[in-house]
Amino acid sequence: MKVLLTGPTGFIGRHAVRHLLASGYDVHTVDIRPIPGNAEPSVTHHTADLLDASQIRDLIAQIRPTHLLHFAWYVTPGKFWTARENLRWLQSSLDLLDSFLDSGGQRSVIAGTCAEYDWTGCGVCVEEQTPIRPSNLYGACKASLQMLQAQLSASSGAAWGRIFHLYGPHEHPSRFVPSVIRPLLRAETAACTHGSQVRDFMHVDDVASAFVALLNSSVSGPVNIASGSPTTIAQIAEQIARLIGRPDLLSLGALPASAGDPPRLVADTRKFQGIGFTPVYTLKEGLSQTVEWWKTAPED
Amino acid sequence: MKVLLTGPTGFIGRHAVRHLLASGYDVHTVDIRPIPGNAEPSVTHHTADLLDASQIRDLIAQIRPTHLLHFAWYVTPGKFWTARENLRWLQSSLDLLDSFLDSGGQRSVIAGTCAEYDWTGCGVCVEEQTPIRPSNLYGACKASLQMLQAQLSASSGAAWGRIFHLYGPHEHPSRFVPSVIRPLLRAETAACTHGSQVRDFMHVDDVASAFVALLNSSVSGPVNIASGSPTTIAQIAEQIARLIGRPDLLSLGALPASAGDPPRLVADTRKFQGIGFTPVYTLKEGLSQTVEWWKTAPED
Repeated sequence: MKVLLTGPTGFIGRHAVRHLLASGYDVHTVDIRPIPGNAEPSVTHHTADLLDASQIRDLIAQIRPTHLLHFAWYVTPGKFWTARENLRWLQSSLDLLDSFLDSGGQRSVIAGTCAEYDWTGCGVCVEEQTPIRPSNLYGACKASLQMLQAQLSASSGAAWGRIFHLYGPHEHPSRFVPSVIRPLLRAETAACTHGSQVRDFMHVDDVASAFVALLNSSVSGPVNIASGSPTTIAQIAEQIARLIGRPDLLSLGALPASAGDPPRLVADTRKFQGIGFTPVYTLKEGLSQTVEWWKTAPED
Repeated sequence: MKVLLTGPTGFIGRHAVRHLLASGYDVHTVDIRPIPGNAEPSVTHHTADLLDASQIRDLIAQIRPTHLLHFAWYVTPGKFWTARENLRWLQSSLDLLDSFLDSGGQRSVIAGTCAEYDWTGCGVCVEEQTPIRPSNLYGACKASLQMLQAQLSASSGAAWGRIFHLYGPHEHPSRFVPSVIRPLLRAETAACTHGSQVRDFMHVDDVASAFVALLNSSVSGPVNIASGSPTTIAQIAEQIARLIGRPDLLSLGALPASAGDPPRLVADTRKFQGIGFTPVYTLKEGLSQTVEWWKTAPED
Protein backbone atom coordinates (compact mmCIF):
# COMPACT_ATOMS: atom_id res chain seq x y z
CA MET A 1 0.00 0.00 0.00
CA LYS A 2 1.55 3.25 -1.18
CA VAL A 3 -0.15 6.49 -0.16
CA LEU A 4 0.30 10.00 -1.49
CA LEU A 5 -0.44 12.63 1.16
CA THR A 6 -0.95 16.24 0.04
CA GLY A 7 -0.63 19.12 2.49
CA PRO A 8 1.88 17.32 4.76
CA THR A 9 2.88 20.55 6.50
CA GLY A 10 -0.69 21.77 7.03
CA PHE A 11 -2.68 21.85 10.24
CA ILE A 12 -4.14 18.35 9.79
CA GLY A 13 -1.66 16.89 7.31
CA ARG A 14 1.33 17.22 9.61
CA HIS A 15 -0.43 14.92 12.09
CA ALA A 16 -1.53 12.45 9.41
CA VAL A 17 1.99 11.27 8.54
CA ARG A 18 2.47 9.36 11.81
CA HIS A 19 -0.95 7.68 11.57
CA LEU A 20 -0.27 6.61 7.98
CA LEU A 21 3.07 5.09 9.00
CA ALA A 22 1.39 3.30 11.91
CA SER A 23 -1.11 1.81 9.46
CA GLY A 24 1.75 0.33 7.42
CA TYR A 25 1.69 2.58 4.36
CA ASP A 26 4.69 3.42 2.23
CA VAL A 27 4.16 7.17 2.74
CA HIS A 28 4.87 9.71 0.00
CA THR A 29 4.22 13.41 0.60
CA VAL A 30 4.09 16.34 -1.79
CA ASP A 31 4.43 20.05 -1.18
CA ILE A 32 5.62 23.02 -3.19
CA ARG A 33 8.59 23.26 -0.81
CA PRO A 34 10.98 20.76 0.76
CA ILE A 35 9.97 19.76 4.30
CA PRO A 36 12.48 21.36 6.65
CA GLY A 37 14.34 19.75 9.52
CA ASN A 38 13.11 16.79 11.47
CA ALA A 39 10.90 15.10 8.87
CA GLU A 40 10.17 11.39 9.32
CA PRO A 41 13.10 9.57 7.68
CA SER A 42 10.84 6.75 6.46
CA VAL A 43 8.71 9.17 4.42
CA THR A 44 9.53 10.03 0.80
CA HIS A 45 8.92 13.70 0.16
CA HIS A 46 8.37 15.11 -3.34
CA THR A 47 8.59 18.78 -4.26
CA ALA A 48 5.98 19.78 -6.85
CA ASP A 49 3.43 22.49 -7.59
CA LEU A 50 -0.06 20.97 -7.42
CA LEU A 51 -1.45 23.94 -9.35
CA ASP A 52 0.52 22.75 -12.40
CA ALA A 53 -1.29 19.86 -14.12
CA SER A 54 1.85 18.61 -15.86
CA GLN A 55 3.73 18.42 -12.55
CA ILE A 56 0.83 16.43 -11.07
CA ARG A 57 0.93 13.96 -13.96
CA ASP A 58 4.68 13.49 -13.62
CA LEU A 59 4.40 13.04 -9.86
CA ILE A 60 1.68 10.40 -10.08
CA ALA A 61 3.50 8.57 -12.88
CA GLN A 62 6.60 8.46 -10.72
CA ILE A 63 4.91 7.31 -7.47
CA ARG A 64 1.95 5.30 -8.78
CA PRO A 65 0.17 5.46 -5.40
CA THR A 66 -2.54 2.96 -4.49
CA HIS A 67 -4.05 5.43 -2.01
CA LEU A 68 -4.55 9.18 -1.99
CA LEU A 69 -5.15 11.36 1.08
CA HIS A 70 -5.74 14.90 -0.13
CA PHE A 71 -5.66 17.85 2.27
CA ALA A 72 -3.87 20.56 0.24
CA TRP A 73 -6.02 23.62 -0.51
CA TYR A 74 -5.96 27.39 -0.28
CA VAL A 75 -6.59 28.11 3.42
CA THR A 76 -5.37 31.64 4.20
CA PRO A 77 -7.49 32.71 7.20
CA GLY A 78 -9.85 35.57 6.55
CA LYS A 79 -9.56 35.08 2.78
CA PHE A 80 -10.24 31.44 1.98
CA TRP A 81 -14.05 31.63 2.19
CA THR A 82 -14.40 33.78 -0.90
CA ALA A 83 -11.03 33.81 -2.73
CA ARG A 84 -10.91 32.92 -6.42
CA GLU A 85 -7.98 30.61 -5.50
CA ASN A 86 -10.65 28.09 -4.50
CA LEU A 87 -11.36 27.58 -8.21
CA ARG A 88 -7.70 26.82 -8.87
CA TRP A 89 -7.64 24.26 -6.09
CA LEU A 90 -10.84 22.67 -7.36
CA GLN A 91 -9.20 22.29 -10.77
CA SER A 92 -5.95 21.07 -9.23
CA SER A 93 -7.81 18.49 -7.15
CA LEU A 94 -9.63 17.23 -10.24
CA ASP A 95 -6.33 16.95 -12.11
CA LEU A 96 -4.82 15.08 -9.17
CA LEU A 97 -7.75 12.69 -8.85
CA ASP A 98 -7.86 12.13 -12.59
CA SER A 99 -4.15 11.24 -12.73
CA PHE A 100 -4.44 9.07 -9.62
CA LEU A 101 -7.32 7.06 -11.11
CA ASP A 102 -5.66 6.81 -14.52
CA SER A 103 -2.56 5.31 -12.94
CA GLY A 104 -4.60 2.60 -11.18
CA GLY A 105 -5.23 4.30 -7.83
CA GLN A 106 -7.52 2.22 -5.64
CA ARG A 107 -8.88 4.50 -2.94
CA SER A 108 -9.01 8.25 -2.42
CA VAL A 109 -10.01 10.22 0.64
CA ILE A 110 -10.38 14.00 0.35
CA ALA A 111 -10.93 16.68 2.98
CA GLY A 112 -14.33 18.32 2.79
CA THR A 113 -16.06 20.77 5.08
CA CYS A 114 -19.22 21.34 7.08
CA ALA A 115 -19.54 24.52 4.95
CA GLU A 116 -20.94 22.32 2.17
CA TYR A 117 -24.17 21.96 4.14
CA ASP A 118 -27.14 24.30 4.32
CA TRP A 119 -26.64 26.07 7.65
CA THR A 120 -30.13 27.51 7.83
CA GLY A 121 -31.85 24.31 8.94
CA CYS A 122 -32.02 22.61 12.34
CA GLY A 123 -28.24 22.61 12.73
CA VAL A 124 -27.65 18.85 12.75
CA CYS A 125 -25.88 17.83 9.55
CA VAL A 126 -26.64 14.36 8.20
CA GLU A 127 -24.48 13.27 5.27
CA GLU A 128 -27.07 12.08 2.77
CA GLN A 129 -30.04 14.11 4.07
CA THR A 130 -29.08 17.68 4.89
CA PRO A 131 -29.23 19.83 1.74
CA ILE A 132 -25.92 20.76 0.15
CA ARG A 133 -26.22 24.52 -0.10
CA PRO A 134 -22.89 26.24 0.54
CA SER A 135 -23.04 29.95 1.24
CA ASN A 136 -19.55 30.79 -0.02
CA LEU A 137 -17.13 29.88 -2.80
CA TYR A 138 -14.99 27.68 -0.55
CA GLY A 139 -17.98 25.51 0.36
CA ALA A 140 -19.19 25.46 -3.26
CA CYS A 141 -15.81 24.30 -4.58
CA LYS A 142 -15.58 21.59 -1.93
CA ALA A 143 -19.16 20.44 -2.55
CA SER A 144 -18.45 20.35 -6.29
CA LEU A 145 -15.32 18.27 -5.77
CA GLN A 146 -17.27 15.81 -3.63
CA MET A 147 -19.90 15.28 -6.34
CA LEU A 148 -17.22 14.89 -8.99
CA GLN A 149 -15.07 12.53 -6.89
CA ALA A 150 -18.11 10.29 -6.40
CA GLN A 151 -18.78 10.15 -10.14
CA LEU A 152 -15.16 9.73 -11.21
CA SER A 153 -14.47 6.98 -8.68
CA ALA A 154 -17.23 4.57 -9.70
CA SER A 155 -14.77 1.70 -10.12
CA SER A 156 -12.53 2.57 -7.19
CA GLY A 157 -13.00 3.39 -3.52
CA ALA A 158 -13.67 6.99 -2.58
CA ALA A 159 -14.64 8.72 0.63
CA TRP A 160 -14.98 12.34 1.63
CA GLY A 161 -14.38 13.60 5.16
CA ARG A 162 -16.47 16.64 6.11
CA ILE A 163 -14.48 18.46 8.76
CA PHE A 164 -16.35 20.34 11.46
CA HIS A 165 -14.51 22.30 14.15
CA LEU A 166 -11.04 21.46 15.32
CA TYR A 167 -8.22 22.78 17.46
CA GLY A 168 -4.73 21.82 18.53
CA PRO A 169 -1.04 22.64 18.10
CA HIS A 170 0.00 24.70 15.08
CA GLU A 171 -3.43 26.27 14.63
CA HIS A 172 -3.45 29.71 13.05
CA PRO A 173 -3.40 32.35 15.84
CA SER A 174 -6.44 34.14 14.43
CA ARG A 175 -8.72 31.16 14.94
CA PHE A 176 -11.00 30.66 17.92
CA VAL A 177 -9.06 28.44 20.37
CA PRO A 178 -5.72 30.28 20.00
CA SER A 179 -7.61 33.58 20.23
CA VAL A 180 -8.58 32.57 23.77
CA ILE A 181 -5.40 30.77 24.84
CA ARG A 182 -2.80 33.32 23.74
CA PRO A 183 -4.06 36.44 25.52
CA LEU A 184 -4.76 34.46 28.71
CA LEU A 185 -1.20 33.11 28.69
CA ARG A 186 -0.02 36.73 28.44
CA ALA A 187 -2.36 37.64 31.35
CA GLU A 188 -4.45 39.77 28.98
CA THR A 189 -8.20 39.84 28.46
CA ALA A 190 -9.56 37.27 25.98
CA ALA A 191 -12.44 38.90 24.13
CA CYS A 192 -15.10 36.48 22.83
CA THR A 193 -18.54 36.63 21.27
CA HIS A 194 -21.61 35.72 23.37
CA GLY A 195 -20.46 32.12 23.13
CA SER A 196 -23.82 30.39 22.95
CA GLN A 197 -23.04 28.94 19.49
CA VAL A 198 -23.13 25.14 19.67
CA ARG A 199 -20.28 23.43 17.81
CA ASP A 200 -18.59 20.06 17.55
CA PHE A 201 -14.89 20.36 18.36
CA MET A 202 -12.27 17.66 17.84
CA HIS A 203 -8.53 17.68 18.49
CA VAL A 204 -6.59 17.98 15.23
CA ASP A 205 -4.57 14.84 15.93
CA ASP A 206 -7.82 12.87 16.30
CA VAL A 207 -9.09 14.45 13.06
CA ALA A 208 -5.92 13.29 11.28
CA SER A 209 -6.24 9.82 12.80
CA ALA A 210 -9.91 9.69 11.74
CA PHE A 211 -8.96 10.50 8.14
CA VAL A 212 -6.47 7.62 8.13
CA ALA A 213 -9.13 5.31 9.60
CA LEU A 214 -11.45 6.44 6.81
CA LEU A 215 -8.74 5.67 4.26
CA ASN A 216 -8.29 2.20 5.79
CA SER A 217 -12.04 1.52 5.80
CA SER A 218 -14.29 0.62 2.90
CA VAL A 219 -16.84 3.33 3.71
CA SER A 220 -17.73 5.42 0.68
CA GLY A 221 -19.16 8.89 0.07
CA PRO A 222 -19.30 11.79 2.51
CA VAL A 223 -18.60 11.16 6.20
CA ASN A 224 -18.79 13.79 8.93
CA ILE A 225 -15.54 13.99 10.89
CA ALA A 226 -16.60 15.26 14.30
CA SER A 227 -16.67 14.32 17.95
CA GLY A 228 -20.42 13.87 18.17
CA SER A 229 -20.23 15.74 21.50
CA PRO A 230 -21.59 19.24 20.89
CA THR A 231 -20.56 22.00 23.23
CA THR A 232 -20.93 25.77 23.31
CA ILE A 233 -18.15 28.12 22.38
CA ALA A 234 -18.49 29.57 25.88
CA GLN A 235 -17.86 26.17 27.47
CA ILE A 236 -14.67 25.81 25.40
CA ALA A 237 -13.49 29.27 26.43
CA GLU A 238 -14.31 28.64 30.09
CA GLN A 239 -12.47 25.31 30.05
CA ILE A 240 -9.40 27.02 28.62
CA ALA A 241 -9.62 29.80 31.21
CA ARG A 242 -9.80 27.23 34.04
CA LEU A 243 -6.82 25.32 32.63
CA ILE A 244 -4.77 28.53 32.55
CA GLY A 245 -6.15 29.67 35.89
CA ARG A 246 -7.47 33.01 34.65
CA PRO A 247 -11.28 32.77 34.37
CA ASP A 248 -11.32 36.44 35.46
CA LEU A 249 -9.79 37.49 32.13
CA LEU A 250 -12.41 35.85 29.95
CA SER A 251 -14.78 38.41 28.43
CA LEU A 252 -17.77 36.71 26.83
CA GLY A 253 -19.93 39.07 24.80
CA ALA A 254 -17.10 41.53 24.16
CA LEU A 255 -17.11 40.79 20.42
CA PRO A 256 -20.07 40.79 18.02
CA ALA A 257 -20.88 37.40 16.49
CA SER A 258 -20.34 37.17 12.74
CA ALA A 259 -23.32 37.55 10.46
CA GLY A 260 -24.24 34.11 9.21
CA ASP A 261 -22.79 32.41 12.29
CA PRO A 262 -25.46 29.76 12.95
CA PRO A 263 -26.62 29.17 16.53
CA ARG A 264 -26.10 25.42 16.15
CA LEU A 265 -23.83 23.53 13.75
CA VAL A 266 -23.17 19.94 14.72
CA ALA A 267 -22.60 16.62 13.02
CA ASP A 268 -24.64 13.48 12.91
CA THR A 269 -21.88 10.94 13.55
CA ARG A 270 -23.65 7.63 12.94
CA LYS A 271 -21.81 7.05 9.65
CA PHE A 272 -18.52 8.22 11.19
CA GLN A 273 -18.86 5.68 13.98
CA GLY A 274 -18.73 2.92 11.37
CA ILE A 275 -15.18 3.63 10.21
CA GLY A 276 -13.40 2.05 13.16
CA PHE A 277 -11.87 5.11 14.76
CA THR A 278 -11.26 5.72 18.45
CA PRO A 279 -10.42 9.26 19.60
CA VAL A 280 -7.47 9.74 21.93
CA TYR A 281 -8.43 13.06 23.45
CA THR A 282 -11.33 14.14 25.60
CA LEU A 283 -12.09 17.82 25.15
CA LYS A 284 -10.42 18.66 28.47
CA GLU A 285 -7.30 16.62 27.68
CA GLY A 286 -7.08 18.06 24.19
CA LEU A 287 -7.40 21.64 25.35
CA SER A 288 -4.86 20.99 28.13
CA GLN A 289 -2.35 19.59 25.62
CA THR A 290 -3.00 22.57 23.34
CA VAL A 291 -2.50 25.11 26.13
CA GLU A 292 0.83 23.42 26.99
CA TRP A 293 1.89 23.56 23.34
CA TRP A 294 1.14 27.29 23.11
CA LYS A 295 3.26 27.96 26.22
CA THR A 296 6.38 27.14 24.21
CA ALA A 297 5.13 27.97 20.70
CA PRO A 298 7.14 30.44 18.62
CA GLU A 299 5.71 33.95 18.64
CA ASP A 300 4.23 35.06 15.35
CA MET B 1 -26.92 45.45 -24.33
CA LYS B 2 -24.33 43.19 -25.92
CA VAL B 3 -24.78 39.44 -25.52
CA LEU B 4 -22.32 36.63 -26.12
CA LEU B 5 -24.08 33.39 -27.11
CA THR B 6 -22.11 30.14 -26.97
CA GLY B 7 -23.25 27.06 -28.86
CA PRO B 8 -24.98 29.05 -31.65
CA THR B 9 -25.15 26.01 -33.94
CA GLY B 10 -26.44 23.63 -31.27
CA PHE B 11 -29.93 22.23 -30.85
CA ILE B 12 -31.14 25.09 -28.63
CA GLY B 13 -28.56 27.76 -29.48
CA ARG B 14 -29.50 27.93 -33.16
CA HIS B 15 -33.02 28.97 -32.15
CA ALA B 16 -31.80 31.47 -29.53
CA VAL B 17 -30.23 33.87 -32.04
CA ARG B 18 -33.56 35.07 -33.41
CA HIS B 19 -35.05 35.61 -29.94
CA LEU B 20 -31.98 37.57 -28.84
CA LEU B 21 -32.23 39.82 -31.88
CA ALA B 22 -35.95 40.31 -31.23
CA SER B 23 -35.10 41.43 -27.69
CA GLY B 24 -32.81 44.13 -29.05
CA TYR B 25 -29.41 42.70 -28.19
CA ASP B 26 -26.23 43.31 -30.14
CA VAL B 27 -25.66 39.58 -30.67
CA HIS B 28 -22.20 38.02 -30.72
CA THR B 29 -21.77 34.28 -31.17
CA VAL B 30 -18.76 32.03 -30.69
CA ASP B 31 -18.01 28.58 -32.02
CA ILE B 32 -14.87 26.64 -32.86
CA ARG B 33 -15.88 26.86 -36.53
CA PRO B 34 -17.28 29.60 -38.76
CA ILE B 35 -21.07 29.45 -39.11
CA PRO B 36 -21.79 28.28 -42.65
CA GLY B 37 -24.22 29.74 -45.14
CA ASN B 38 -27.31 31.68 -44.23
CA ALA B 39 -26.29 33.09 -40.84
CA GLU B 40 -28.13 36.17 -39.61
CA PRO B 41 -26.28 39.14 -41.15
CA SER B 42 -26.83 41.30 -38.07
CA VAL B 43 -24.97 38.82 -35.83
CA THR B 44 -21.23 39.06 -35.24
CA HIS B 45 -19.70 35.59 -35.20
CA HIS B 46 -16.33 34.85 -33.57
CA THR B 47 -14.28 31.73 -34.16
CA ALA B 48 -12.54 30.52 -31.00
CA ASP B 49 -11.89 27.35 -29.00
CA LEU B 50 -13.70 27.62 -25.67
CA LEU B 51 -11.52 24.85 -24.27
CA ASP B 52 -8.54 27.22 -24.48
CA ALA B 53 -8.55 29.67 -21.57
CA SER B 54 -6.36 32.20 -23.36
CA GLN B 55 -8.69 32.27 -26.36
CA ILE B 56 -11.61 32.87 -23.98
CA ARG B 57 -9.82 35.79 -22.35
CA ASP B 58 -9.00 37.35 -25.72
CA LEU B 59 -12.56 36.88 -26.93
CA ILE B 60 -14.13 38.50 -23.87
CA ALA B 61 -11.62 41.36 -23.94
CA GLN B 62 -12.54 41.99 -27.56
CA ILE B 63 -16.33 41.83 -27.16
CA ARG B 64 -16.83 43.03 -23.56
CA PRO B 65 -20.37 41.62 -23.43
CA THR B 66 -22.88 42.86 -20.86
CA HIS B 67 -24.81 39.58 -21.08
CA LEU B 68 -23.79 35.93 -21.45
CA LEU B 69 -26.02 33.10 -22.65
CA HIS B 70 -24.00 29.88 -22.38
CA PHE B 71 -25.18 26.67 -24.05
CA ALA B 72 -21.92 25.17 -25.36
CA TRP B 73 -21.00 21.82 -23.81
CA TYR B 74 -19.97 18.30 -24.77
CA VAL B 75 -23.21 16.65 -25.86
CA THR B 76 -22.37 13.62 -28.03
CA PRO B 77 -25.42 11.33 -27.64
CA GLY B 78 -24.71 8.05 -25.88
CA LYS B 79 -21.46 9.40 -24.45
CA PHE B 80 -22.12 12.71 -22.75
CA TRP B 81 -23.54 11.28 -19.52
CA THR B 82 -20.22 9.84 -18.38
CA ALA B 83 -17.47 11.28 -20.61
CA ARG B 84 -14.45 12.93 -19.00
CA GLU B 85 -15.02 15.78 -21.50
CA ASN B 86 -17.61 17.06 -19.02
CA LEU B 87 -14.74 18.08 -16.73
CA ARG B 88 -13.13 20.08 -19.54
CA TRP B 89 -16.40 21.89 -20.20
CA LEU B 90 -16.87 22.61 -16.51
CA GLN B 91 -13.42 24.21 -16.47
CA SER B 92 -14.06 26.04 -19.74
CA SER B 93 -17.35 27.39 -18.40
CA LEU B 94 -15.64 28.64 -15.24
CA ASP B 95 -12.95 30.34 -17.33
CA LEU B 96 -15.65 31.93 -19.48
CA LEU B 97 -17.69 33.13 -16.51
CA ASP B 98 -14.58 34.42 -14.74
CA SER B 99 -13.50 36.43 -17.79
CA PHE B 100 -17.03 37.69 -18.35
CA LEU B 101 -17.34 38.95 -14.77
CA ASP B 102 -13.83 40.42 -14.76
CA SER B 103 -14.66 42.47 -17.84
CA GLY B 104 -17.78 43.94 -16.21
CA GLY B 105 -20.42 41.45 -17.38
CA GLN B 106 -23.80 42.21 -15.83
CA ARG B 107 -25.93 39.08 -16.22
CA SER B 108 -25.21 35.46 -17.12
CA VAL B 109 -27.64 32.67 -17.92
CA ILE B 110 -26.30 29.13 -18.26
CA ALA B 111 -27.95 25.92 -19.44
CA GLY B 112 -28.40 23.35 -16.69
CA THR B 113 -30.24 20.05 -16.63
CA CYS B 114 -32.89 18.11 -14.78
CA ALA B 115 -30.11 15.52 -14.28
CA GLU B 116 -28.82 17.68 -11.43
CA TYR B 117 -31.79 16.57 -9.30
CA ASP B 118 -32.20 13.43 -7.26
CA TRP B 119 -34.40 11.25 -9.46
CA THR B 120 -35.30 8.76 -6.76
CA GLY B 121 -37.90 10.92 -5.02
CA CYS B 122 -41.49 11.74 -5.92
CA GLY B 123 -40.57 12.84 -9.43
CA VAL B 124 -41.57 16.51 -9.16
CA CYS B 125 -38.46 18.69 -9.17
CA VAL B 126 -38.63 21.94 -7.22
CA GLU B 127 -35.66 24.27 -7.66
CA GLU B 128 -34.72 25.06 -4.08
CA GLN B 129 -36.21 21.97 -2.42
CA THR B 130 -35.48 18.81 -4.38
CA PRO B 131 -32.06 17.43 -3.38
CA ILE B 132 -29.23 17.98 -5.86
CA ARG B 133 -27.91 14.47 -6.28
CA PRO B 134 -26.79 13.80 -9.86
CA SER B 135 -26.29 10.18 -10.81
CA ASN B 136 -23.71 10.78 -13.54
CA LEU B 137 -20.72 12.97 -14.35
CA TYR B 138 -22.70 15.23 -16.70
CA GLY B 139 -25.19 16.07 -13.97
CA ALA B 140 -22.43 16.48 -11.39
CA CYS B 141 -20.49 18.92 -13.60
CA LYS B 142 -23.61 20.95 -14.34
CA ALA B 143 -24.65 21.00 -10.66
CA SER B 144 -21.12 22.10 -9.72
CA LEU B 145 -21.18 24.89 -12.25
CA GLN B 146 -24.53 26.10 -10.91
CA MET B 147 -23.19 26.33 -7.34
CA LEU B 148 -20.07 28.10 -8.53
CA GLN B 149 -21.94 30.52 -10.79
CA ALA B 150 -24.13 31.52 -7.84
CA GLN B 151 -21.08 32.23 -5.67
CA LEU B 152 -19.05 34.00 -8.34
CA SER B 153 -21.94 36.23 -9.42
CA ALA B 154 -22.73 37.77 -6.06
CA SER B 155 -22.47 41.29 -7.43
CA SER B 156 -24.02 40.59 -10.83
CA GLY B 157 -27.15 38.91 -12.10
CA ALA B 158 -27.07 35.18 -12.66
CA ALA B 159 -29.67 32.57 -13.51
CA TRP B 160 -29.51 28.92 -14.38
CA GLY B 161 -32.03 27.18 -16.65
CA ARG B 162 -32.61 23.52 -15.82
CA ILE B 163 -33.71 21.93 -19.07
CA PHE B 164 -36.14 19.02 -18.93
CA HIS B 165 -37.27 17.23 -22.10
CA LEU B 166 -37.40 18.87 -25.49
CA TYR B 167 -37.90 18.10 -29.15
CA GLY B 168 -37.97 19.87 -32.48
CA PRO B 169 -36.08 20.40 -35.73
CA HIS B 170 -32.39 19.45 -35.83
CA GLU B 171 -32.66 16.98 -32.94
CA HIS B 172 -30.16 14.13 -33.01
CA PRO B 173 -31.79 11.14 -34.76
CA SER B 174 -30.99 8.78 -31.88
CA ARG B 175 -33.18 10.70 -29.44
CA PHE B 176 -36.75 9.81 -28.57
CA VAL B 177 -38.96 11.97 -30.81
CA PRO B 178 -36.92 11.42 -34.01
CA SER B 179 -36.70 7.71 -33.15
CA VAL B 180 -40.50 7.58 -33.52
CA ILE B 181 -40.94 10.03 -36.40
CA ARG B 182 -38.27 8.76 -38.78
CA PRO B 183 -39.26 5.08 -39.09
CA LEU B 184 -42.96 6.02 -39.35
CA LEU B 185 -42.15 8.41 -42.21
CA ARG B 186 -40.37 5.49 -43.93
CA ALA B 187 -43.45 3.28 -43.26
CA GLU B 188 -41.39 1.15 -40.88
CA THR B 189 -42.18 -0.02 -37.35
CA ALA B 190 -41.27 2.45 -34.58
CA ALA B 191 -40.08 0.44 -31.59
CA CYS B 192 -40.59 2.11 -28.18
CA THR B 193 -40.34 1.20 -24.52
CA HIS B 194 -43.52 0.60 -22.50
CA GLY B 195 -44.09 4.35 -22.64
CA SER B 196 -45.62 4.90 -19.23
CA GLN B 197 -42.76 7.23 -18.18
CA VAL B 198 -44.16 10.67 -17.37
CA ARG B 199 -42.11 13.55 -18.78
CA ASP B 200 -42.38 17.24 -19.43
CA PHE B 201 -41.74 18.01 -23.12
CA MET B 202 -41.25 21.44 -24.64
CA HIS B 203 -40.54 22.49 -28.23
CA VAL B 204 -36.90 23.52 -28.64
CA ASP B 205 -37.84 26.93 -30.05
CA ASP B 206 -39.89 27.63 -26.93
CA VAL B 207 -36.96 26.44 -24.81
CA ALA B 208 -34.67 28.90 -26.61
CA SER B 209 -37.23 31.67 -26.23
CA ALA B 210 -37.59 30.85 -22.52
CA PHE B 211 -33.82 31.18 -22.03
CA VAL B 212 -33.88 34.62 -23.62
CA ALA B 213 -36.82 35.61 -21.40
CA LEU B 214 -34.78 34.41 -18.41
CA LEU B 215 -31.85 36.51 -19.58
CA ASN B 216 -34.16 39.54 -19.88
CA SER B 217 -35.67 38.97 -16.44
CA SER B 218 -34.14 39.70 -13.04
CA VAL B 219 -34.87 36.20 -11.69
CA SER B 220 -31.81 34.64 -10.08
CA GLY B 221 -30.65 31.10 -9.30
CA PRO B 222 -31.93 27.87 -10.81
CA VAL B 223 -35.16 27.89 -12.82
CA ASN B 224 -36.81 24.82 -14.33
CA ILE B 225 -37.38 25.26 -18.08
CA ALA B 226 -40.34 23.03 -18.82
CA SER B 227 -43.90 23.11 -20.07
CA GLY B 228 -45.51 22.24 -16.76
CA SER B 229 -47.79 19.90 -18.71
CA PRO B 230 -46.62 16.36 -17.99
CA THR B 231 -47.45 13.63 -20.45
CA THR B 232 -46.44 10.03 -20.95
CA ILE B 233 -43.91 8.95 -23.53
CA ALA B 234 -46.67 6.75 -25.00
CA GLN B 235 -48.94 9.77 -25.48
CA ILE B 236 -46.16 11.55 -27.37
CA ALA B 237 -45.54 8.51 -29.58
CA GLU B 238 -49.27 8.06 -30.23
CA GLN B 239 -49.68 11.75 -31.13
CA ILE B 240 -46.82 11.44 -33.63
CA ALA B 241 -48.28 8.25 -35.10
CA ARG B 242 -51.68 9.95 -35.56
CA LEU B 243 -50.04 12.98 -37.21
CA ILE B 244 -48.24 10.68 -39.66
CA GLY B 245 -51.30 8.48 -40.08
CA ARG B 246 -49.59 5.23 -39.12
CA PRO B 247 -50.70 4.28 -35.58
CA ASP B 248 -50.52 0.65 -36.78
CA LEU B 249 -46.70 0.87 -36.97
CA LEU B 250 -46.19 2.02 -33.40
CA SER B 251 -44.83 -0.79 -31.21
CA LEU B 252 -44.98 0.18 -27.54
CA GLY B 253 -43.15 -2.26 -25.27
CA ALA B 254 -40.84 -3.48 -28.04
CA LEU B 255 -37.77 -2.01 -26.33
CA PRO B 256 -36.64 -2.44 -22.72
CA ALA B 257 -36.65 0.74 -20.64
CA SER B 258 -33.22 1.91 -19.51
CA ALA B 259 -32.10 1.09 -16.01
CA GLY B 260 -32.40 4.25 -13.95
CA ASP B 261 -35.20 5.61 -16.15
CA PRO B 262 -37.52 7.08 -13.50
CA PRO B 263 -41.28 6.49 -13.83
CA ARG B 264 -41.96 10.22 -13.35
CA LEU B 265 -39.68 13.19 -13.95
CA VAL B 266 -41.46 16.51 -14.16
CA ALA B 267 -40.82 20.12 -13.27
CA ASP B 268 -42.40 22.38 -10.76
CA THR B 269 -42.85 25.49 -12.92
CA ARG B 270 -43.98 28.11 -10.41
CA LYS B 271 -40.64 29.92 -10.55
CA PHE B 272 -40.51 29.57 -14.35
CA GLN B 273 -43.90 31.23 -14.66
CA GLY B 274 -42.41 34.36 -13.11
CA ILE B 275 -39.95 35.09 -15.93
CA GLY B 276 -42.47 36.49 -18.38
CA PHE B 277 -42.39 33.81 -21.05
CA THR B 278 -45.26 32.66 -23.26
CA PRO B 279 -44.87 29.42 -25.22
CA VAL B 280 -45.78 29.42 -28.89
CA TYR B 281 -46.39 25.72 -29.40
CA THR B 282 -48.93 23.36 -27.96
CA LEU B 283 -47.60 19.80 -27.86
CA LYS B 284 -49.70 18.87 -30.89
CA GLU B 285 -48.59 21.91 -32.89
CA GLY B 286 -44.97 21.40 -31.95
CA LEU B 287 -44.98 17.73 -32.90
CA SER B 288 -46.77 18.56 -36.16
CA GLN B 289 -44.15 21.19 -37.04
CA THR B 290 -41.40 18.71 -36.16
CA VAL B 291 -42.89 15.95 -38.31
CA GLU B 292 -43.06 18.37 -41.25
CA TRP B 293 -39.42 19.34 -40.71
CA TRP B 294 -38.31 15.71 -40.73
CA LYS B 295 -40.11 15.11 -44.02
CA THR B 296 -37.54 17.30 -45.79
CA ALA B 297 -34.59 16.88 -43.43
CA PRO B 298 -31.28 15.68 -44.85
CA GLU B 299 -30.64 11.96 -44.32
CA ASP B 300 -27.89 11.18 -41.84
